[in-house]
Order: sequence, then C-alpha cells, then structure tokens
Amino acid sequence: MISISKRAQAIQPFHVMKLLARAKELEAQGKHIIHMEVGEPDFNTPQPIVDAGMTAIRKGDVHYTAPMGLPALRKAIAQFYLQQFQLTISPERIVVTPGASGALLLALAAIVEAGQSVIMADPGYPCNRNFVSLLEGQNQLVNVDADTQFQLNKALVEQHWRENTAAVLLASPSNPTGTIIAEKTLNEIIGFVEQKQAAVLVDEIYQGLVYDTLPYTALSLSNNIFIINSFSKYFSMTGWRIGWLVVPEAFIPVVDNLAQNIFLAAPTPAQHAALAAFNPETIEILEQRRREFKQRRDFLLKALPKLGFTIPVKPDGAFYIYVNCEALTDNSFQFAEQCLEQAGVAITPGIDFGNNKAEKYIRFAYTTSLDNLKKAIERLEQFISDFGK
Amino acid sequence: MISISKRAQAIQPFHVMKLLARAKELEAQGKHIIHMEVGEPDFNTPQPIVDAGMTAIRKGDVHYTAPMGLPALRKAIAQFYLQQFQLTISPERIVVTPGASGALLLALAAIVEAGQSVIMADPGYPCNRNFVSLLEGQNQLVNVDADTQFQLNKALVEQHWRENTAAVLLASPSNPTGTIIAEKTLNEIIGFVEQKQAAVLVDEIYQGLVYDTLPYTALSLSNNIFIINSFSKYFSMTGWRIGWLVVPEAFIPVVDNLAQNIFLAAPTPAQHAALAAFNPETIEILEQRRREFKQRRDFLLKALPKLGFTIPVKPDGAFYIYVNCEALTDNSFQFAEQCLEQAGVAITPGIDFGNNKAEKYIRFAYTTSLDNLKKAIERLEQFISDFGK
Repeated sequence: MISISKRAQAIQPFHVMKLLARAKELEAQGKHIIHMEVGEPDFNTPQPIVDAGMTAIRKGDVHYTAPMGLPALRKAIAQFYLQQFQLTISPERIVVTPGASGALLLALAAIVEAGQSVIMADPGYPCNRNFVSLLEGQNQLVNVDADTQFQLNKALVEQHWRENTAAVLLASPSNPTGTIIAEKTLNEIIGFVEQKQAAVLVDEIYQGLVYDTLPYTALSLSNNIFIINSFSKYFSMTGWRIGWLVVPEAFIPVVDNLAQNIFLAAPTPAQHAALAAFNPETIEILEQRRREFKQRRDFLLKALPKLGFTIPVKPDGAFYIYVNCEALTDNSFQFAEQCLEQAGVAITPGIDFGNNKAEKYIRFAYTTSLDNLKKAIERLEQFISDFGK
Repeated sequence: MISISKRAQAIQPFHVMKLLARAKELEAQGKHIIHMEVGEPDFNTPQPIVDAGMTAIRKGDVHYTAPMGLPALRKAIAQFYLQQFQLTISPERIVVTPGASGALLLALAAIVEAGQSVIMADPGYPCNRNFVSLLEGQNQLVNVDADTQFQLNKALVEQHWRENTAAVLLASPSNPTGTIIAEKTLNEIIGFVEQKQAAVLVDEIYQGLVYDTLPYTALSLSNNIFIINSFSKYFSMTGWRIGWLVVPEAFIPVVDNLAQNIFLAAPTPAQHAALAAFNPETIEILEQRRREFKQRRDFLLKALPKLGFTIPVKPDGAFYIYVNCEALTDNSFQFAEQCLEQAGVAITPGIDFGNNKAEKYIRFAYTTSLDNLKKAIERLEQFISDFGK
C-alpha cells in the first residue's frame, strides 16, 4: 500500500457534499429541492462576456498566454481600480489566476515558510486552511462573533500573534457571514502586521456584491498587501476559472516564477472572455443582478427571524446569511439533514466553516430566485412546526 | 518588508524566458524569428473540439462541475483506455484537472510528506521539482544519459533510494529528450517501488505523439500507480488548461477532497470541449498532425548532425530533439543567445532542464512548419560557420 500523506488525510470533505449527494438522490426520485446551499450565482455568465469568449475561441486564441496573464486583461483590471476606486495600480502588480484558488495558492506559496502560521477567522472559507496545510504551514483559527462583525480586529490579531506568524488572511465581504471589515479596523490590522514585517492578504472575491454601501478595496489603504479577487461571483464566471491577485511591487518576479511553475497560465478562453467583464453593458447586467440579490437578502432578513432563527449580524454583502439556530436545535448538521429530507430545502451546516460554535449555525445562500426563496420559507415554516415532534 | 518564502526564492525563471523576451524585441524591430523553443503545438485546437466548447458556452454550461470533473468526460477517458489499450479503468479513478500541472500537484500532494524525497531524471521537465518544493519535499535528481535512453531504470532507482523516498516520477515520452521508457524497465521499476510501498508517477502527456511505435500506457503494468496526462499536446488544447490524473483505487476519496480544495474543478468550457477529443473525426485530424510531426522530426534528425550537433538518442516521441552541442560550444546558453541574435532562431538551452551537463545540450522543438525548419537549418548553417570567428 502506498501511504497517503498526512496533509491529504487531514482534509475533511465539505459536509454539504453529503447533503448535495442526498439532494440529487431525492431529485432523482422526483422530489423538488430548493437549493440554498450553493456558493454559486444562479445567473448565467453575462452575454457580452460569453460573446468575447466565443469570439476568441473562434479565432483560435486558445494557446498559452504569459504566466501572469494577457497584458490587455491586466491593464483592464488596473483600469477597473482606477475607475471604481480612483487608485493607480500598475498592471505589473496584477496576476491573472485560475480562479481565486490559484491566487490564494500563489500568494501563500510566496509568503508562508513551512512551520509558519497564518491567522484567519473562524468561521471562514474552509479551503483557505487547506492551502496553508499544503505548504506545511500552520493554521491559527481565531474565533470571531457578532461583537466584531465576525471579522478579525487588531486586538485579536495582536493577542494571537506568534513569533512565527507569517500572515493574516481577511475576507471582506466574508463567506459565510457576508460582513465587511470596517476601514478603520482594517487599517489598524495592516499597521500592526506591517510593523511585524508580515503579510496581510485580503480576499475581496465578493467585493462587487454589497448592498448598503459602495464597493471597497483594501488597496486604498496600502500597496504592501495581497489582494485576492475573482471573476466568479459578481461577474458570474464560476466555471471559467478565472480570478486575479494583486501583489506588492517586490513580489512581482517571484510570483511570475511561481505562476509559471504552478499553473503555467490561467485558461485562455476565460481570459479573453473576462476582457468584456468591465464593459458598461456588462456592468449594467451585473448591477441589475446585484439589486436582485439585495431583494432576496432583504426578504430573508425579514422572513428567517420569524421562523426562530437569529441573525447575529446583518450581512453587508456576498449572497449568504449566517444564522444562529440554537433556539431550534443544538445540532445544525442534523437539522440540515432533516430539513433536506422533510422540507426539500438544502442548506449548509456551520461545521463546514470551522469549529467555532458550528453546531449552532447554518448558512443560507440566496443563489436562487425570490420565488424559490418564498417557497423555501413556507416549507421551512411547516418543517419547523413539525420539527422535534 | 514582507519576507519572500525560501521556496519561492529558490525557483529559477526558465532561462528561455529571457530568450523569448529578446525574441519579441527583435520581432518588434522587424526581424524574423523562427521559434524552435516553444513547447506548444503550432496547430490550432481541432474544429470538433472548438465546436463542442462553443456549444457548451452558448448553452450556458459554464458553471462549476464536480471537483473530479464532468462524469461524461471521466467516462470518455475510461473509454479511451479501453479502445486504445484494451484496459478497463474505472471512471472513478480518473480525475479531470486544470492541465497536467493540476494533476501533478494533486498526485504529489496526496503522496509526498514534508521532508520526503521524489526521485526524478535530470534532464527533465523543470516544473516537477518546484511542485515537490512547494510541498516541502526534497528533489532527488538522478543524472541520466544516452546509456539508459535518458530514462531511469531499476538499478538507478535502487542506487538512489533513501529511507524517506516517497515516489519516483517518470516521463514517457520525456521532455526534453523525447525518449520512451522500455516496458521491461518500467516494469522492473514498478516492482521495486511497490515493494518499498512507495509510489510511481508516470507523466504520459506526450503519449499520443510517438512516431515509430504504438502509444503505450504504464497502466498496462499496474493499477497501483499514478498517471498524469493532458489534452494540451497531442490534442492541441494548451490554453484551455485541461488534463487528467489516474489514481489507485485507494486514493479516490483523498484526491476528491484535495481537488475540491486546491482548484475546485477544471475549467468547464474546456471540459465540455474535451468531450469531442476522442471523436473519430478529431482523431483523424490529430493523426494527420502526428504524421506531420514525424516528418519534421525525421528532417531534423538528418539535418542537425550535418551542422555539428550530436543526437545522443533518437527521440521516439514528443516534439523535441535534445542535442549535444559540445563540438560547437562549451556554453549552450551563450550559444542559444547568439543563435537568436545572429541567426534569428530561438532554441532552449540545456540549463532549463537540470544541471546534468546542461551546458553541453540544447533542445530543439519542432513546433513550427517544415518550411520554417528548413529555413532554420539554413540560418544555423551560416551562423555556425561564422560562430566563434
């Protein structure tokens, strides 16, 4: 028998995968399932992006690009920072990556030495930890709650700082909570970490999906941080696998080398398609969708508390609501299982985002139509009134 | 200043990148450059594959797939093993990956513990080493030469075996030498490594590009090995970023978890496009191209020795000839630089493939038309007659 590496053994499958498999079985039996577990927009890729991708493919533009990406796309992303945030970011600092996954791996590989630790919030996006483990780094999960908007702050970072901490990873808006980190808090963290000569990484993949404020980038505060972004969520390009990374000036050569070696380059059709992502015509489509996401969020923010869920913090963005379900159950995974079986509503249990009181939390994704959400709430009402009887 | 990780600092850029940059400058000045440095087919993606990709995009099939890939594509790859090699491989064992890069990272992450070593041939494909470094493993480069067809054999593996060796990585046909590993040799290596309870990985990305024999897979010899393959080379799908990995049965769950976490899934448009890769219509196009590659190889095999290069072993496949240039120079990198400047022919110096007498070797890629190759030979003849004068 060939040994399986410890790091591979340590990775847990997402619990929601088990629910998804069961949902498929139920669907195969003809049962109607409302999917509120999926971290993927229900919208198709906007037509201008699709058209740009198809044109490139038709023209045979499907060869390797440079490892850092198409120069035109790196320029377009720089232009996006200028237009949206009045920031001048050199295209040289922008790396086009195969999704945010590629960006995270690249950034962490450039920063984290074996044995060094990365501070991140719990609850948080679970893959982050596994990138750190892949590089033989250590995860320092820091429990966060409603008191800090489920975000880290300087006091928490300082309190958990170790001699060997290499980086702090933030996400704003966050998955699963949808909260954004306050500019002041972010600035304080950056100041502290810079003084420690360590790195701040900010995952901004839900940047464009905010509902009560304007989009924001941590690049406004410092050029000496790493920004992870993606065309998947706001731009509805999930399966194309394309994102980007902004690095400090000094990291350009090493990140170029790493990109060449780790993934060669992001998919070429996706890069050409993404050239149309910032067109006014595309943005108009995306802004319409953003307004629809807001409607869905606002509907759930009213409906879920009536069912007995507590919403500890109003989510600012993304397409998730992270609810406390302890008034209804002390086992959110079991609750999710039964909810699927009996109500035909698929949701994600807290355990998929960490260990911090995970059994008391559930994530609702509003990546399905308002009609479906309304149906889901009706079904949940019935289910909850039967639950535990 | 944020520290750059040791692993990132240790990665050298490919020397050929410097030559490529210079080639672009020369081209911008109006000079005609013949590119014999590129590891990418000059052919476009076959039309049936392009059509399948465009149809999928038009239909909106651009959402995430399952982490292991589209079930239909995994089945199609299993079917390919059945038809081409009369092997029954369960689709469960096949993982669709973002290029062979994704496959290599996945396989090594599942096998190699920090501090463990991987044995591989020098000269060899340089990125392999960097994947091992990424995982904090150790590279054990073993010098190979014409005596063993530039391949490892059991004696070499045994001689270099250490207590902590986790795997042996082979490539057949190999880059840069184009040689295939003899079935008997491969079988002996597999037997030895299995007895050590370690892993054999075989990179078969040039599998379909063989010119004197039928394509071959190491899967014929064992189900307990890892096979890396790709749609990039034989199938001319480089920029789409799609490949695959075949794993032993026992590794299916961990590889599924790793894939979910490391890259989520291979690009969806590429996966749909690749469904057309095994169509008879596509294969007809590809076999025509293979015959053209053979013509190019055969032309160079005759022409290069007349210029003073020695071809230590006739390449069986891929689209490379690895030549010894010591009769002409003792510095192949400088030779390549001058060759570009004076002859307008871009070639890859041995240093990009390792340290084993690298200064005496050059790789010629025949990824350009026969006409261009003829022109290149004329220019090289002139250059060499002037060289060193």
